[in-house]
Amino acid sequence: MDKKQPVPSVEVSKAARAALERRGVTLRDIGEIVYEMQYTYNEGLTLDHCIEAVDAVLRKREMQYALLVGIELDELAEKNLLSQPLQQIIETDEGLFGVDETIALGAVLTYGSVGVTTYGHLDKHKVGIINQLDTKTNEGVHTFLDDLVGAIAAAASSRLAHRIRDMEESGIKLAEGMTV
Amino acid sequence: MDKKQPVPSVEVSKAARAALERRGVTLRDIGEIVYEMQYTYNEGLTLDHCIEAVDAVLRKREMQYALLVGIELDELAEKNLLSQPLQQIIETDEGLFGVDETIALGAVLTYGSVGVTTYGHLDKHKVGIINQLDTKTNEGVHTFLDDLVGAIAAAASSRLAHRIRDMEESGIKLAEGMTV
Amino acid sequence: MDKKQPVPSVEVSKAARAALERRGVTLRDIGEIVYEMQYTYNEGLTLDHCIEAVDAVLRKREMQYALLVGIELDELAEKNLLSQPLQQIIETDEGLFGVDETIALGAVLTYGSVGVTTYGHLDKHKVGIINQLDTKTNEGVHTFLDDLVGAIAAAASSRLAHRIRDMEESGIKLAEGMTV
Amino acid sequence: MDKKQPVPSVEVSKAARAALERRGVTLRDIGEIVYEMQYTYNEGLTLDHCIEAVDAVLRKREMQYALLVGIELDELAEKNLLSQPLQQIIETDEGLFGVDETIALGAVLTYGSVGVTTYGHLDKHKVGIINQLDTKTNEGVHTFLDDLVGAIAAAASSRLAHRIRDMEESGIKLAEGMTV
Repeated sequence: MDKKQPVPSVEVSKAARAALERRGVTLRDIGEIVYEMQYTYNEGLTLDHCIEAVDAVLRKREMQYALLVGIELDELAEKNLLSQPLQQIIETDEGLFGVDETIALGAVLTYGSVGVTTYGHLDKHKVGIINQLDTKTNEGVHTFLDDLVGAIAAAASSRLAHRIRDMEESGIKLAEGMTV
Repeated sequence: MDKKQPVPSVEVSKAARAALERRGVTLRDIGEIVYEMQYTYNEGLTLDHCIEAVDAVLRKREMQYALLVGIELDELAEKNLLSQPLQQIIETDEGLFGVDETIALGAVLTYGSVGVTTYGHLDKHKVGIINQLDTKTNEGVHTFLDDLVGAIAAAASSRLAHRIRDMEESGIKLAEGMTV
Repeated sequence: MDKKQPVPSVEVSKAARAALERRGVTLRDIGEIVYEMQYTYNEGLTLDHCIEAVDAVLRKREMQYALLVGIELDELAEKNLLSQPLQQIIETDEGLFGVDETIALGAVLTYGSVGVTTYGHLDKHKVGIINQLDTKTNEGVHTFLDDLVGAIAAAASSRLAHRIRDMEESGIKLAEGMTV
Repeated sequence: MDKKQPVPSVEVSKAARAALERRGVTLRDIGEIVYEMQYTYNEGLTLDHCIEAVDAVLRKREMQYALLVGIELDELAEKNLLSQPLQQIIETDEGLFGVDETIALGAVLTYGSVGVTTYGHLDKHKVGIINQLDTKTNEGVHTFLDDLVGAIAAAASSRLAHRIRDMEESGIKLAEGMTV
């Protein structure tokens, strides 16, 4: 690979999805969070709609880059390869750190500020897979990943809300099997 | 008042506090939300510490300006003085609007990104006075105010978390009557 | 108009474009700023590509809502209809105000953080129509509008940069008459 | 060092300043950028006032954490220790990356949104030391550092603007040797 060339988008995309998978997070896991957050507001919403929205969010460059950076830092911390004191800050999931929230928030905001509420809720209540990832209660370092999964779920929720509104205004009722 | 002169900070500050009061929100109301969010993490925390933190947050220019703009828009909407369709958008607290969240978020971020979680949680769960302000379930228009009260509470929580950490590191244990 | 119904998206969109036009800003004016910012980086870029990108940005709900709020506040200030001290703060385009930047920034960030640089540059150097709008040197109040026009131009620049990269990676060379 | 304890603030602070120094950036270098940006607006402003403002900004936890993360990633990229494709993305200072801008912007926003303009300007025009750090034209990898230096300078400029306004309103005229 010639180092001076920009990385093709298709490689960035593949690498971001591979990183998620390697860390044990499936699109279905995140789709389940989205469904949990949105089903009461949207009659006819299925898990498949939610997984599809997660897939769409993962096609965005901003989200892919955020995942690559965050997961790299988690993995380097697991292997004890960061310099001190950053190694310890990330390993202990320091509550006042904030760079994890900043990176996640940047990715959420590409879907508008209405996703921030969902992101904040997920970051606090650690729904579904986010709870299993919590560095403080489990094995491994997931200081960035839990925030990033929350960001993907919040972005997908925001995308769904916008799309479903557009459909409603066109007189289309959401139903199973429909592409949102 | 000469229109070409900048408004003195003391007038901005007074006007922002007066606007909150006029809309029926006291520093104690917001302090109670902060206490509710923080007491489990901080032994020795009292309601007075929380009210003091709210007071400190209200001394920040960014927060004062955000309050002046948001409350003005709520009040103009109540008086039916906005042009259409903005009048209707604010009056109905349109879910996809987002400018209310943007302004509130801007003020939260002056206390760092760790406050975003608290803000998102409050915006979703509408703790305390925020619930009473919710435009969709009550009289009056509070489309901006409920987000702004959440922002003040989140900023005050973040301020407390930073200050209490500093005290702990200096070997000081939080107690009643102590200035944080 | 039934006040309790949400405003249809098509009305929000029309109102936002009408507001821009009423304030003397055309898509071509903003397109010219985008062209000025981007032509050195993109061989084959024409003014039409830039106007098309501006048009796409104006189809986004976040941008439409930001325009409606900002222009409303500018117009209310021109008519002396805001309460004090907000009237004077907006009328004098107070340098430390920041709510104008916050609203504009929220809209830029929906195109990712790479647009922030362009936004900051435009806000400082007041290229093209932005200079003519500057409240401090001209008639009328444009405290929000100049920031919003900068936000639209920055968002359109960011959109173009992403799209042109995608085309390049597919082996397509940008040329006149091509849809970006 | 016990890995399960939070890192004391004093260590975080020392590490952030040491990282800047190791990368060849002095407080004076950043102070000079601040002076360049602010002297025309503030009569009596000296380079010492600007260096003092930079020092104050570096006492903020958000800025320290941002520096630790960004410089770590630059240094890992220099040593070729990141996994692909992140290694190449950071090494080539990919224009659409954006995580560098996101982290820098998060730190700027703790001083309010008025700093965003200065940050954007610096990121585009690469004043002073920022130009020497530009990864694309020089030795070494400074993909994050140039944005972080711009963020520190923008935050310090914003801090000065707020403080000087407060002094003016108290009838104090800025002069050499005075603490801002």
